[in-house]
Amino acid sequence: MKGFAMLKIGQTGWIEKNRPVCGPMDAIVRPLALAPCTSDVHTVWEGALGPKENLILGHEGCGEIVEVGSLVKDFKPGDKVLVPAITPDWNSVEAQAGYSMHSGGMLCGWKFSNFKDGVFGEYFHVNDADGNLALLPENIQPAEACMLSDMVPTGFHGAELADVQFGDTVLVIGIGPVGLMSVAGANLHGASEIIAVGTRQVCRDAAKYYGATQFIGYKDGSIDEQVMDLTGGKGVDKVIIAGGTVDTFEPAVKCVKAGGRIGNVNYLGSGEYIKIPRVEWGVGMGHKTIAGGLMPGGRLRMEKLGSLVACGKLDVSRLITHRFTGFEHVEDALMLMKDKPADLIKPVVVI
Amino acid sequence: MKGFAMLKIGQTGWIEKNRPVCGPMDAIVRPLALAPCTSDVHTVWEGALGPKENLILGHEGCGEIVEVGSLVKDFKPGDKVLVPAITPDWNSVEAQAGYSMHSGGMLCGWKFSNFKDGVFGEYFHVNDADGNLALLPENIQPAEACMLSDMVPTGFHGAELADVQFGDTVLVIGIGPVGLMSVAGANLHGASEIIAVGTRQVCRDAAKYYGATQFIGYKDGSIDEQVMDLTGGKGVDKVIIAGGTVDTFEPAVKCVKAGGRIGNVNYLGSGEYIKIPRVEWGVGMGHKTIAGGLMPGGRLRMEKLGSLVACGKLDVSRLITHRFTGFEHVEDALMLMKDKPADLIKPVVVI
Amino acid sequence: MKGFAMLKIGQTGWIEKNRPVCGPMDAIVRPLALAPCTSDVHTVWEGALGPKENLILGHEGCGEIVEVGSLVKDFKPGDKVLVPAITPDWNSVEAQAGYSMHSGGMLCGWKFSNFKDGVFGEYFHVNDADGNLALLPENIQPAEACMLSDMVPTGFHGAELADVQFGDTVLVIGIGPVGLMSVAGANLHGASEIIAVGTRQVCRDAAKYYGATQFIGYKDGSIDEQVMDLTGGKGVDKVIIAGGTVDTFEPAVKCVKAGGRIGNVNYLGSGEYIKIPRVEWGVGMGHKTIAGGLMPGGRLRMEKLGSLVACGKLDVSRLITHRFTGFEHVEDALMLMKDKPADLIKPVVVI
Amino acid sequence: MKGFAMLKIGQTGWIEKNRPVCGPMDAIVRPLALAPCTSDVHTVWEGALGPKENLILGHEGCGEIVEVGSLVKDFKPGDKVLVPAITPDWNSVEAQAGYSMHSGGMLCGWKFSNFKDGVFGEYFHVNDADGNLALLPENIQPAEACMLSDMVPTGFHGAELADVQFGDTVLVIGIGPVGLMSVAGANLHGASEIIAVGTRQVCRDAAKYYGATQFIGYKDGSIDEQVMDLTGGKGVDKVIIAGGTVDTFEPAVKCVKAGGRIGNVNYLGSGEYIKIPRVEWGVGMGHKTIAGGLMPGGRLRMEKLGSLVACGKLDVSRLITHRFTGFEHVEDALMLMKDKPADLIKPVVVI
Repeated sequence: MKGFAMLKIGQTGWIEKNRPVCGPMDAIVRPLALAPCTSDVHTVWEGALGPKENLILGHEGCGEIVEVGSLVKDFKPGDKVLVPAITPDWNSVEAQAGYSMHSGGMLCGWKFSNFKDGVFGEYFHVNDADGNLALLPENIQPAEACMLSDMVPTGFHGAELADVQFGDTVLVIGIGPVGLMSVAGANLHGASEIIAVGTRQVCRDAAKYYGATQFIGYKDGSIDEQVMDLTGGKGVDKVIIAGGTVDTFEPAVKCVKAGGRIGNVNYLGSGEYIKIPRVEWGVGMGHKTIAGGLMPGGRLRMEKLGSLVACGKLDVSRLITHRFTGFEHVEDALMLMKDKPADLIKPVVVI
Repeated sequence: MKGFAMLKIGQTGWIEKNRPVCGPMDAIVRPLALAPCTSDVHTVWEGALGPKENLILGHEGCGEIVEVGSLVKDFKPGDKVLVPAITPDWNSVEAQAGYSMHSGGMLCGWKFSNFKDGVFGEYFHVNDADGNLALLPENIQPAEACMLSDMVPTGFHGAELADVQFGDTVLVIGIGPVGLMSVAGANLHGASEIIAVGTRQVCRDAAKYYGATQFIGYKDGSIDEQVMDLTGGKGVDKVIIAGGTVDTFEPAVKCVKAGGRIGNVNYLGSGEYIKIPRVEWGVGMGHKTIAGGLMPGGRLRMEKLGSLVACGKLDVSRLITHRFTGFEHVEDALMLMKDKPADLIKPVVVI
Repeated sequence: MKGFAMLKIGQTGWIEKNRPVCGPMDAIVRPLALAPCTSDVHTVWEGALGPKENLILGHEGCGEIVEVGSLVKDFKPGDKVLVPAITPDWNSVEAQAGYSMHSGGMLCGWKFSNFKDGVFGEYFHVNDADGNLALLPENIQPAEACMLSDMVPTGFHGAELADVQFGDTVLVIGIGPVGLMSVAGANLHGASEIIAVGTRQVCRDAAKYYGATQFIGYKDGSIDEQVMDLTGGKGVDKVIIAGGTVDTFEPAVKCVKAGGRIGNVNYLGSGEYIKIPRVEWGVGMGHKTIAGGLMPGGRLRMEKLGSLVACGKLDVSRLITHRFTGFEHVEDALMLMKDKPADLIKPVVVI
Repeated sequence: MKGFAMLKIGQTGWIEKNRPVCGPMDAIVRPLALAPCTSDVHTVWEGALGPKENLILGHEGCGEIVEVGSLVKDFKPGDKVLVPAITPDWNSVEAQAGYSMHSGGMLCGWKFSNFKDGVFGEYFHVNDADGNLALLPENIQPAEACMLSDMVPTGFHGAELADVQFGDTVLVIGIGPVGLMSVAGANLHGASEIIAVGTRQVCRDAAKYYGATQFIGYKDGSIDEQVMDLTGGKGVDKVIIAGGTVDTFEPAVKCVKAGGRIGNVNYLGSGEYIKIPRVEWGVGMGHKTIAGGLMPGGRLRMEKLGSLVACGKLDVSRLITHRFTGFEHVEDALMLMKDKPADLIKPVVVI
């Protein structure tokens, strides 16, 4: 079969591989729609996961099952399915402890285009089909379904990590597709004012649609000073970090209230240390909790978040600014993600 | 001063009383708008709080401060304020334990028209002004502000007690004004499907506006059977009880999933026992948690929920179906609440 | 192979069955020690699980693995293992939601002597060995290990459900072996005063050893009145119900403080309804949360609770009052459990 | 009256001041026993709170009430009381949000020897007596009662911040008096293995008494490597930081499991940044939550923790290595705290 792969650090291309083999609990899926992610860009051109050779890329997509293993009970060939980017080993002790995304080791619930070939192939393999797939609701289109693999669960996890509650003032740093879903997640968890950090107009428009009420630019001064101005010196109740770098935590700590929380869902690709300013962190005693975590994946997560889209309470189509048709356009979509033109939020390839 | 009072069980009328006296931490407030509550009806005509004589009624309103005590720091005469129905003693051990509504004893955070004169007077007394009042945001009208005293915080507490999370299917039993705010609260906390129980058209229209997706009637069969039909036999993740009687818990337990929660905010006025069906409660081991609680009141709660209205994310005007102008119409508004015509959700009196 | 079984309601006996078959994720275990449970008594003589024929009894034991399936990674024949009474299907949506004991349906994580043959056989079958077994720590004897199957995790779950915190006053109703472990769990979660309800001297002595500070008898007046006397009218912060009937919730609600929690781990074998007294439950608004649940099982739970025994912080030997040697004594042990002599807490059979 | 004060940075001495004035909600207390804290040393000799002149030191002590304000309801002159180091303004929005220690601003619940004169005077002032004092249980001696002001609530808060649960393996960094109470708190919240970092024999002996099971020395290699060795490469479930510097977080992050928590109760006196190692923090996504907070104070906290001592479940006398008699010895006790001889844990002055 054909697949679009990372050949080595800095180089991509189409390769031929054997169709993946289906274990007794697994499924083989033919993609219906696919989307590239900024992580794919990090993986290839920054070598963020280290040197990988001939690894099929991609962890966002939906598809149709073509084969299931002998122990699979709830799915059969022909079923159209949502596919999460994170597909845990559910019987691991980490999953039993509530951290399925770290099953088998930190971040090891992330398998696609990390430990095994990703979804940018004519077929892809899903471990534990019963535990990790969900039926595609009838009223969700394949293109929209791709947003449920990573953008929605990751963005919403930001709101969960920050523990947004009724009436909170929330700062969302970064309004790319993940940050936009953090805005939507904060909004759907009861936030009042949502201050969004970002400048591209297409993103600001989408952020406003998803619930942002005020905007800040990276270049208009430090984030924390702008936040303090906007809040009359009070600061914000919660911060979601969905963009930036290891240096983004400093302004976050500075402008969150004592007793607040900072939830990070940004992949920190470089830098040796995240630096927490001692004094503004209350000399260690300010109750400004710092939490960061990989999205929860698996079947239930897909069913729950899918239901928000299916019942019309979350419209993910605002994320999709570029649409391609045909498997071969996976390459174009990835290059678009790499080049990030001003009008891009997220490209999707329908197959 | 004049006040509209419960004279004795079953009888109301206008009385003259001395203006309340302001303690060192307190405030005296002149009402700008007032609303009657079904609780007032229970208090007078059902004697729910026992025999009371010449007690000024009412616990929903907003007003303008006319006097503050010597220890009050953050408010002054002339300030327009939100007033919660529940005004705790914040230094009590119960408040320190996180249950301010039970400060000094179970339910004892509820003082207005319970332990002391309520808000249906030319002036009313607020204990601990700094701890219990909040400035009225400029873009909230006094009529709408009345909804923040009790309907919004009580209804939203239902969503808190039921612990509604992203993608939950939620059953809301009762869609009077509190139930409608439970629908809104569940919706603003991430619920997908919201099944609402109620039949009046004005309430169903409002419920749909606030996020309900499906409806059930009390007379179309048992609630649990209707829910099981709608959910394909799966049941719901969470239940909010905002209406009904002590017998409402039985269908709630029957149709909530194992691991679900039932949150009650309904004042249970009569009946000796709430009955939990043993088998469907998992012979004691089904993890169907039953929580019921009086709304949290106080300043922060008013500020937080007020900010949802102020920033346009919650429109409470859909609750107000009848508007009066003039203090003397408090009586008409209460009678309307007693008679519950088909087109009523909530009446308000602007002064 | 031989097994000790329920032949039909009211009748037990030894039967011959085929050795269970090992699926790809499973293990076959030969018991090293076994213990009967009051549930076995309910199952046989009260028909609590309905009519069952020739079902091998027992869900408490430890053993040595004799066979593992092809997909099992962490265990091999010869390994000595802790075996939980509850062995979930970890990839079920219920487990993903945090309620593994209800995987596949309410209470369906309980398989031994319920849906399949129990542990009172020469061999028994364990589903998902990697997910449900734990290595037996070297310094735990097989007899003591049996207490980790059900008594410890169930009793401790009472303390979890009641959410015992530093300095709480806790009422534990029932001091049979589960209740004793609820006392120990409350004590190990920071309770101060622990008021235990029970009269048998052997149980009171053990309860005192595990942390109980005061005692109440069922026959010395109503539980709630005795508690109110002991606490100067304040009531208790938390209640753990580990004995009694559906009628035990009434005194529990009456003597728990507003804002308190009642955690039930008692199998409620009969009665149509649990009755919650309306007035003392705060007319629905007293924040007296009622939670009841089956113990969490599986590997991590065994590892965690096993470590408490292994490091010497929990001595379960005080539970074992009667010790037998030889598989054939399983019958005697069960009869002892049925007859409950005054000096019995728990019998164990070492094989 | 006489008081022992910080005269300026680096200098202490006895001064004369007017007896403090009692506001309507307050109390004036005469000390029965007092203890110096390492914070006092930081305040004076490191100028940690900035330049202060003639500020009476001390925030650990108990005493007898000599005067109460007109609004105080639950206390009267002659009552012997526990006094917490942190005395919040309970009606502040921060306290209403659950963070009373930050009432009025980050860390502003800490008033003694910070914003106002401390307890090392012939009399001291307590704001909000009803909210912040607790009756001294009869069976707690004044010397022991001093440990309840700061050492117990701070140490135990470490276990709360780290969210220690049944069977957790916990690392406690620092076993001075606060760290010892973190060991005790972790132990009383269900920890199994407790690995303690510290070398002084008197501290190790006390740590073993309070529940530590293994020991590590600062000088025997990096903390994280030693922990990895002890845990077979698995790391620990939770970390409590009760000593060290801003650099202590690096090994903590390195040796805590994904999904673990780090709770800090150490006052970080110097350094610009706390540095979180990016890779071991899971490139931002490892769910290694970092929480740090000032102890909760106030009346309920004193009652709850006091009850643990009163009922014999926590023996704080092991903390007290040096005892003085007579108010004038406050100076000697502080100097001892400054010099930290090898056999010191905590000195107390009984008056």
